[in-house]
Amino acid sequence: MDDALGKRTWVIAEGHIPSGGHGDSPALLSHETACILNTSGTDAHVEITVYFSDREPVGPYEVTVPARRTVHQRFNDLTDPEPVPRDTDFATVLRSDVPVVVQHSRLDSRQAELALLSTIAWPAG
Amino acid sequence: MDDALGKRTWVIAEGHIPSGGHGDSPALLSHETACILNTSGTDAHVEITVYFSDREPVGPYEVTVPARRTVHQRFNDLTDPEPVPRDTDFATVLRSDVPVVVQHSRLDSRQAELALLSTIAWPAG
Amino acid sequence: MDDALGKRTWVIAEGHIPSGGHGDSPALLSHETACILNTSGTDAHVEITVYFSDREPVGPYEVTVPARRTVHQRFNDLTDPEPVPRDTDFATVLRSDVPVVVQHSRLDSRQAELALLSTIAWPAG
Amino acid sequence: MDDALGKRTWVIAEGHIPSGGHGDSPALLSHETACILNTSGTDAHVEITVYFSDREPVGPYEVTVPARRTVHQRFNDLTDPEPVPRDTDFATVLRSDVPVVVQHSRLDSRQAELALLSTIAWPAG
Repeated sequence: MDDALGKRTWVIAEGHIPSGGHGDSPALLSHETACILNTSGTDAHVEITVYFSDREPVGPYEVTVPARRTVHQRFNDLTDPEPVPRDTDFATVLRSDVPVVVQHSRLDSRQAELALLSTIAWPAG
Repeated sequence: MDDALGKRTWVIAEGHIPSGGHGDSPALLSHETACILNTSGTDAHVEITVYFSDREPVGPYEVTVPARRTVHQRFNDLTDPEPVPRDTDFATVLRSDVPVVVQHSRLDSRQAELALLSTIAWPAG
Repeated sequence: MDDALGKRTWVIAEGHIPSGGHGDSPALLSHETACILNTSGTDAHVEITVYFSDREPVGPYEVTVPARRTVHQRFNDLTDPEPVPRDTDFATVLRSDVPVVVQHSRLDSRQAELALLSTIAWPAG
Repeated sequence: MDDALGKRTWVIAEGHIPSGGHGDSPALLSHETACILNTSGTDAHVEITVYFSDREPVGPYEVTVPARRTVHQRFNDLTDPEPVPRDTDFATVLRSDVPVVVQHSRLDSRQAELALLSTIAWPAG
């Protein structure tokens, strides 16, 4: 289980956090997530840059994924250097110092019933 | 943040814009989207060709993705050389003069509750 | 637009056609689809083999995707050599004589509101 | 149909089994699935390791995918060495002794209407 699997740079071209939601718990609140897996024996330091349609990119946001752990990072929870705005189109680039695997998911609970999407991110190198 | 990430040619084999929708705002109107991220320092000129099941392809539709920006292009909004027909199966090829990353998403609000899909597009070269 | 894009062999490991549905039209009937795009100037002859959990594979099913056309082939509509069974797990391999791009989608209308999934298929060569 | 297609190591960075569900049958119970296709003429022995956010990985879980068969393995059904916990973020690595193709799907029936997601897994080698 010590082998590092994946790539160091990943791209998620889709991103959008709805401002509302009908979920009755944090699990059912609308959220946008980057699921990151670090299979290696070394902690992964991941820098996330957020791109927008009408202004300069913001970042890096810093996330640590410990050795042999997964972090399902909600973009809703990123606050430093600034919160990710709601109801705004964005895209993200994730750069890690050790290989990781990144999958993108969204749960949308704006209406009474939830909707889901997920896709493997784009491995850029 | 100046590095160009991605590929110049992307394919989305699935495409379908429902004609109806119950959304109460543009955000909840049924739509089909190509999310394009240009991480480079140069504007990306993207040409979109739309393929159908029963007639010749239409295009190119021209979209500019500025340097260090993302554009979430709704196929609903493409009008030149002609609108993309509703309730019709289609597929698309995107060709850019600088590397970009493309992700495909759909929000379907034909019924009372919305449904979502998303996938990374196919990088053809 | 004459360039052939894609690969000749594609795999869809997920497959399942629900037997029921509440849709009020063919568009809203539960269906499982292989979206195939042929950007080349030559017709693509695609052979689909269906794999099951408990018996030998069935096929080939034959589909033609004309030059510069897309076919969104519903597995529901495959009948020769035999219909694809409902409520049964399956997987598919698609082999084409010219390069194509394949994306997998499902619309599930077993309950009152529809659900969608989609992913790029696996390019095997 | 004897050709082995795919890779030996696959990663699914997203994983989450909701504890509840409104489905009225096993088909509609919330579930998380790894769809595995073995096109080769040799049985595939697959070892699944499950990674968490706050403790050491668990596994291997052992699954056999017979020659020319598909197995849609629900993580809900894995019990040895221990059940996969509900309402917990996880990620998985699948290692097979023959090439296979892996696709990830989830059906979520926590609310009245179901939601679906699917994506090709990440082929690590």
